[in-house]
Amino acid sequence: MNRIPFAEVQAALAGVLRKLGFAHDRADVCARLFAETTRDGVYTHGVNRFSRFVTTIRNGRVDPAAEPQVTARLGALERWDGRRGPGNLNAFAAMERAIAVGRGHGVGCVALGNTNHWMRGGTYGWQAAESEMIGICWTNTMPNLPPWGGAERIIGNNPLIIAVPRANGPVVLDMAMSQFSYGALESYRKRGEMLPVDGGFDAEGKLTRDPGAIEESWRPLPAGYWKGSGLAIVLDMIAAMMTLGQATHQISSVAVQETAISQMFLALNPGAFGSAAEADRIADAVVASLHSCKPAAQGGKVRYPGEETLRLRDENTRLGLPVEPAVWAEIMAM
Amino acid sequence: MNRIPFAEVQAALAGVLRKLGFAHDRADVCARLFAETTRDGVYTHGVNRFSRFVTTIRNGRVDPAAEPQVTARLGALERWDGRRGPGNLNAFAAMERAIAVGRGHGVGCVALGNTNHWMRGGTYGWQAAESEMIGICWTNTMPNLPPWGGAERIIGNNPLIIAVPRANGPVVLDMAMSQFSYGALESYRKRGEMLPVDGGFDAEGKLTRDPGAIEESWRPLPAGYWKGSGLAIVLDMIAAMMTLGQATHQISSVAVQETAISQMFLALNPGAFGSAAEADRIADAVVASLHSCKPAAQGGKVRYPGEETLRLRDENTRLGLPVEPAVWAEIMAM
Repeated sequence: MNRIPFAEVQAALAGVLRKLGFAHDRADVCARLFAETTRDGVYTHGVNRFSRFVTTIRNGRVDPAAEPQVTARLGALERWDGRRGPGNLNAFAAMERAIAVGRGHGVGCVALGNTNHWMRGGTYGWQAAESEMIGICWTNTMPNLPPWGGAERIIGNNPLIIAVPRANGPVVLDMAMSQFSYGALESYRKRGEMLPVDGGFDAEGKLTRDPGAIEESWRPLPAGYWKGSGLAIVLDMIAAMMTLGQATHQISSVAVQETAISQMFLALNPGAFGSAAEADRIADAVVASLHSCKPAAQGGKVRYPGEETLRLRDENTRLGLPVEPAVWAEIMAM
Repeated sequence: MNRIPFAEVQAALAGVLRKLGFAHDRADVCARLFAETTRDGVYTHGVNRFSRFVTTIRNGRVDPAAEPQVTARLGALERWDGRRGPGNLNAFAAMERAIAVGRGHGVGCVALGNTNHWMRGGTYGWQAAESEMIGICWTNTMPNLPPWGGAERIIGNNPLIIAVPRANGPVVLDMAMSQFSYGALESYRKRGEMLPVDGGFDAEGKLTRDPGAIEESWRPLPAGYWKGSGLAIVLDMIAAMMTLGQATHQISSVAVQETAISQMFLALNPGAFGSAAEADRIADAVVASLHSCKPAAQGGKVRYPGEETLRLRDENTRLGLPVEPAVWAEIMAM
C-alpha cells in the first residue's frame, strides 16, 4: 500500500480530469472530493472508484462540461437539472444551494434530476454539517436490490445520508438500503469469511450468511427486511416526483451505463432562532449518553454514526492517503 | 369481536374525552383520530390504546386543555411548543401547519417540542398525502431499544413516517426503528410462534427468533442492526436540536410517564411547479413496476408500503370497526 500526500493525489486526479475536458476549477473540486473520500476512510468510493468514473466520461454517460441549472423555484424549494454532468460536482452544488436557502428560510430543499452517481453520499452530509446545518439527502440508483417479497432486483439501494452538526465532531449517517453492498459481499468472500448476520437469500430462497451464495442468487437483503425495502421505495418515488426525473425502474441496470438519476437535498438550520449553541449542547448530551451505554461485548463501545471519520481523516492526512500501487499506476498512466 | 359503526365509536370516545376536560371540538377530533386508526387496521394504536391514553390524562402527563403554540418562525421553518397537550391533536396541528407552509414555500417544516405520544404515526403521513403533499415526520420516544453494540435500552424506536400522495392510493411507510415492537413479540409468543427472522438477542447474547427470549433479555434488534440504530440516533438528535426539547435519554422510560417528547414534521409540495399530474404518473409507474416484480414465493406479490390500508378502511367502514368486547365494555364504563 502506497501512502501518498493528499495534495499529490488531488493534483494527479485533477490532471487526468483536465485531459478529459474538465474546466480547470471543476477538475480541482472533483479531484478534491475523490481525495477527501479516501482521506475519510471510505476507500470504496474514493480513489479506488476513479477509474470507473473515468469510464463513464469516456463512454459519454457523464458530460464533464455540463453544469447544473435551476429550472424552477418557489420559496424554499428549487428544482435543478443536472444535465448529466459529473455526479459529485452536481451534488456538491445542490447541497451548497440547499444550505444557502436553508440559512435564510430555516429549511432549504433542492431536487436534482438528470444527474449522475454522486460517489460517496456522506460527502454532502459532511458538507452540510461543516456549515453548521443539518443535512438530509438521498439518491436513487439503478435497480440492484429485490424488494421484500420479490425475487428480482427492481429497486435501488438508494443511499440516505443524515448529518448533524456538532462542534466536537459531526454525526453523519450514510446508509444504503441493502444490508450489505455487493462490494462488502465480495470482500467477505475473498477473505473466506461468513457475514456477521444474514445478508441475503441463497439459490433455494433460504436466508444465509454465505456471501458467495448471495452473489450467485443476486438476492441480497434490504436492511431490516421489509423496512429497508419500503424506505428504498418511498425515497425513489419522492426523488423522481420532485425532480420529474427518472425512477429506479427507468435507470439502466448496467453499472457504467447508469445515468440520469434523481436526488434530494435538504438542509435544516438548527441555529435559525439563535439557538445554535443550545442545539450543540443537546447533540453533545446525546453522544455522551451513547458513550455511557453498557457495551454488549466486553471491551466494546457504542459509537455514533461517523464516529471514526475524524480519526481516519487525521491519520490519512498525517501519513498520506493509502492507495494500492496498481490503482496508482493506472491513474499515472491515464 | 364486536363490529361497531365508526360514528358510534367516535361518539363514545368523544364523550369520555369531554368528561376528562376536552373542549367539545377537540374531543371530536381526538376521538376521530383514534377511530380512524382502528378503521385503517392499525389495531394496536387505535381504540385498543384509548385506555392507556386516558391513564396519561388522569395521571397528569397529558393536559387535555393545552393547545400548541408557535414560538419561533423563519421562512419555511417554525418551532412549536406542544405544552404537553394530547399528542395526536398536537401532531395533527403540526402537520396541518407544515402542509400550509409547504404549499406556499414548496417545503414546510414544523419542529414540535414538549408534546406527547402521537399514537399512530401513519395518521400524519395520510394527512399530508390526502392533501396532495409528501409528508415526512418522526418522533422520538422513551428509551426502549439498545443501540447497536450496547446491552442497555438507551435509544428510542423513533418511528419515521414517509408518505407519498397518489390519486390511486397514497404510499405510506410507517416504520419504527426496532425490527419488531414489544407488542409484536408478545403476540408471536402468545400464538406460540417463532418470529419469521431474527428479532433480538437471548440472555446469552445470541441472535434469536424466540419472542419470549427477547422479552426476557430486553434486547430487541434495531431494524437492519447498525443501520436502524444509527437512524434512531440521528432522528432523535434532530428532533431535540430543532425543538430545543428533550432527547430520548431525558425521557422517562416508564410507559405511562413518557412525556415532553420531540417531533419533526416536513411537507414537500410535488405540485409546487404545476406538475402534480406528472408527479402522480411517476408514482403510478413505480407502483406498476413493483406489481410486475416476480414474487419470491409462488402466489406471492410485492406490495408497496400501506397498500392494504384502503382495503381495510373500506372493509371496516362497511362492516363496522372491530373492537374486543372487553375493550368496548371498559370504554362504556368510563
